[in-house]
Amino acid sequence: MSGGRKLYDLAAADPALRFSPYCWRTKLALAHKGLTVETIPWRFTEKEAIAFSGSQTVPVLIDGDKTVADSQAIAEYLEAAYPDAPSLFGGAQGHALTAFVRRWADGVLQAALAKILMPDIFPILHPKDQEYFRETREPRIGMRIEALGAQRAAHLPALEAPLATLRTVLKGQKYLGGDTPLYADHIVFGALQWAVKTSSTPLWGTDDVIAHWMQALLDYYGNNICN
Amino acid sequence: MSGGRKLYDLAAADPALRFSPYCWRTKLALAHKGLTVETIPWRFTEKEAIAFSGSQTVPVLIDGDKTVADSQAIAEYLEAAYPDAPSLFGGAQGHALTAFVRRWADGVLQAALAKILMPDIFPILHPKDQEYFRETREPRIGMRIEALGAQRAAHLPALEAPLATLRTVLKGQKYLGGDTPLYADHIVFGALQWAVKTSSTPLWGTDDVIAHWMQALLDYYGNNICN
Repeated sequence: MSGGRKLYDLAAADPALRFSPYCWRTKLALAHKGLTVETIPWRFTEKEAIAFSGSQTVPVLIDGDKTVADSQAIAEYLEAAYPDAPSLFGGAQGHALTAFVRRWADGVLQAALAKILMPDIFPILHPKDQEYFRETREPRIGMRIEALGAQRAAHLPALEAPLATLRTVLKGQKYLGGDTPLYADHIVFGALQWAVKTSSTPLWGTDDVIAHWMQALLDYYGNNICN
Repeated sequence: MSGGRKLYDLAAADPALRFSPYCWRTKLALAHKGLTVETIPWRFTEKEAIAFSGSQTVPVLIDGDKTVADSQAIAEYLEAAYPDAPSLFGGAQGHALTAFVRRWADGVLQAALAKILMPDIFPILHPKDQEYFRETREPRIGMRIEALGAQRAAHLPALEAPLATLRTVLKGQKYLGGDTPLYADHIVFGALQWAVKTSSTPLWGTDDVIAHWMQALLDYYGNNICN
């Protein structure tokens, strides 16, 4: 079915719980190209399982005899390897403009979400990943994960500005890509799906334009997206 | 030279000082289309001078027998009316992605700049505009302009995140549009030119990638941009 195509996909203790924003970008990009894929649950500490790729992190895509790691590299690869399927970027100019959305999603939206979600992610991780997660994340946040969790309410307001930007755009058009989705949609969806999958409380309402857009994306790709 | 093309362009007391972020968007968009224009200095309170357009604010463009007000409407008009000149958006998908940059520029970058610049703008306005500026802006900011000015240092940090997003993009590509500029560049340039023209202190260094990109844009359009 998937033509031997495989994707190493970050999983929680529950192997069906896939929460990586970068893996979600890739799963939507594959669906956008009409490509099916077998996802392989992978944990942070399973470095040897993906050592063949030269990468320490997922997503890692195996497509026939080609291996590509890193969500951005995978998107570039898919666009070049499947030029007859719908474009992820909308040409050279769309590609350039997508970089703005990506840098914003990485540096603003995901940065705000990380401070909220990290304490929620820790307890759902596979026990073998928890020490790794603590050792890699605590230096970045400058405190214990539990201390960050105690500050949760204080970090919620910083999410409002990026969500407001997104809402304003989505009130004027169906997708970030216009009438149909583009990789810019996948990038921002990935960030928010990370929250949907891990947050201990909902971060937006079910009637929010953001919720409707996420559902529209899932409907658009239909059964091509798993997990 | 300008084929009778005219643009009403917001001016300070000094008629050569043109500071509106929206008028700058339009001036770059005109240059991008290779169109020359005669700019007419206009003050906030000169409502009767542009009443013919149906708009209370500038930019207002007169292009032959066509009058268009509002920077976004002008950009859409130029793209449709001059299809053989370089595109402002890069097709339907680029157009959709530009909306994200625009909403971010309006709601985040310009919102952060407004709190810094408003007290700097007030004293350079034509005296006949000052009462209007106070009456329209003070309800938005919820305080006297002078009180906002006293808080200047407190509002500088909020500018750092949007500038950081912009820097990260510009470290990876020459323009927001890629190898050549697009209207997304004009939008963000307009916001920053507003600061260049009015801020009492520099808000970024002369060696900042932002400064280099602004100069590259001015060089790209050469003598087609005035004021």
